Amino acid sequence: MGILCVGSVALDSVRTPSGERTEALGGSATFFSMCASFFAPVDIVAVVGDDFPPGAIELLKSRGIGLAGLEKRPGRTFRWKGEYSWDLNEARTLATELNVFERFAPVIPAALRSCEWVFLGNIDPVLQGQVLDQMERPRLVAADTMNFWITGKPAELSRVLGRVDLLFVNDAEARQLAGESNIVKAVRAIRGMGPKIVCVKRGEYGALLFLPDHGNGTDFFAVPALPIDEVLDPTGAGDSFAGGFVGALAAAGRVDGDTLRRAAVLGSAMASFAVEDFGLDRLRRLGGDEISGRRDLFARLMGIGA
Amino acid sequence: MGILCVGSVALDSVRTPSGERTEALGGSATFFSMCASFFAPVDIVAVVGDDFPPGAIELLKSRGIGLAGLEKRPGRTFRWKGEYSWDLNEARTLATELNVFERFAPVIPAALRSCEWVFLGNIDPVLQGQVLDQMERPRLVAADTMNFWITGKPAELSRVLGRVDLLFVNDAEARQLAGESNIVKAVRAIRGMGPKIVCVKRGEYGALLFLPDHGNGTDFFAVPALPIDEVLDPTGAGDSFAGGFVGALAAAGRVDGDTLRRAAVLGSAMASFAVEDFGLDRLRRLGGDEISGRRDLFARLMGIGA
Repeated sequence: MGILCVGSVALDSVRTPSGERTEALGGSATFFSMCASFFAPVDIVAVVGDDFPPGAIELLKSRGIGLAGLEKRPGRTFRWKGEYSWDLNEARTLATELNVFERFAPVIPAALRSCEWVFLGNIDPVLQGQVLDQMERPRLVAADTMNFWITGKPAELSRVLGRVDLLFVNDAEARQLAGESNIVKAVRAIRGMGPKIVCVKRGEYGALLFLPDHGNGTDFFAVPALPIDEVLDPTGAGDSFAGGFVGALAAAGRVDGDTLRRAAVLGSAMASFAVEDFGLDRLRRLGGDEISGRRDLFARLMGIGA
Repeated sequence: MGILCVGSVALDSVRTPSGERTEALGGSATFFSMCASFFAPVDIVAVVGDDFPPGAIELLKSRGIGLAGLEKRPGRTFRWKGEYSWDLNEARTLATELNVFERFAPVIPAALRSCEWVFLGNIDPVLQGQVLDQMERPRLVAADTMNFWITGKPAELSRVLGRVDLLFVNDAEARQLAGESNIVKAVRAIRGMGPKIVCVKRGEYGALLFLPDHGNGTDFFAVPALPIDEVLDPTGAGDSFAGGFVGALAAAGRVDGDTLRRAAVLGSAMASFAVEDFGLDRLRRLGGDEISGRRDLFARLMGIGA
């Protein structure tokens, strides 16, 4: 039931209307693995520089996250700097320093090649493909991507999408990837590229999950985002969503429709925690009992009494 | 269980990426009453000019909509002209001709003053107040408003909000009305102005319903919009939503939490029909059995198996 997660481990400097943080632990693999770790064992494959703070290693270890695949190389860790305006809808990137990430060539330790659950964070689709080349026979390959790769490496992205079962993608990026403004048609086109399950992330509106129905058509499920009155920092919400989602699938050991629906709710629950404080601050102090409390909140948010 | 609905009856000229229509029947009271009529008796109070097409009267009559309060005055009917760009998110108004609507002073026929369910469409808040002055003792007053009145007549709007139980308002307009970018805080502020139930409409993302919980706090319910692969014309979606919503409340004769949740789903179902064709074209050929079929679709869209 182990999950392998490949992505970035970064130091984020973020400014939001609620405050700012400098060089705090972030990155797609970090948010994903922190959230997935509440549900199932998870290992990171990523690279950091020799300036990576020991406290960050300790934090990941404290959640039982496997770090055998976390390569430490001479040089500086990947850094991202961004800010959000008052509506918190989209990050404006102020600076990206790839540093050691520039030459990242993921090597999957032998013991992890049999992982059944794989999450390919939002990195170069060529690297995503190299990860899959090294895996034995995963039960589920989930992936994230972004506009940068959709425009910059469409052929490479297309090749890796043919090997992906579950794609997480933003609303606008789904339309861009498919070249189609209607989201239902866009997802139909994306499913034709490979992923049979497509999860369209919609920020504060939640996510729309498209999955195979019992015939050959499409079933769907709308999971809302929890309305939150103090969103301090939306950074990492999408990867937290994916972490809860894939973590819940791995814990269940199944990928049927109901399991996917429940997983989407847990993904949204984890994202709702992530945004309540800066960086990983909320997730690092999160208790497992809080997750079940939040699941009850989602039941209210989504439910109709008998 | 009768509903009184006050609003505009208009001739709309609309262009969308899928086509265009000229001087087709539209207006808030029209969409609202067409949709509500599938659930409960509904009467319109509105004004039209002497150019109002007899076919439009016949259409409303065919749905059993009461027209005793539909005043016909010398002059031209209210006309609106607008267009939508490819993302269908927002209408761009090209022309508004108030015509007979400019001097509209709603007079409620004596027989309708005892209606228990009142919907105040998006008109001047002064007129909305005049309607309420004439009503005996409604069980529920629902209202819609828009940015035009929020900026143009804030004091008048504030006065009428104190008499409203259920407010339908767009996402952006809720933030504007409250002067607060966080939607949870914005709704808290709006509830302080009067309406104990606030339904935040979010276009293709559905709606977020805030309602009293069993204590003194707020409960919430997220109703998705149905993903639709051919949205021909979004005009009237919000009023169709309100029509299904208030219609379902009147049919149930209750305003408890579960009834409100079910009503929101039926509102979203009616909106999903409305956008499938231009103007009222889909609603005019809608069969009641199609509504229950769509309710099943919503159960799939929202549901998690046992």
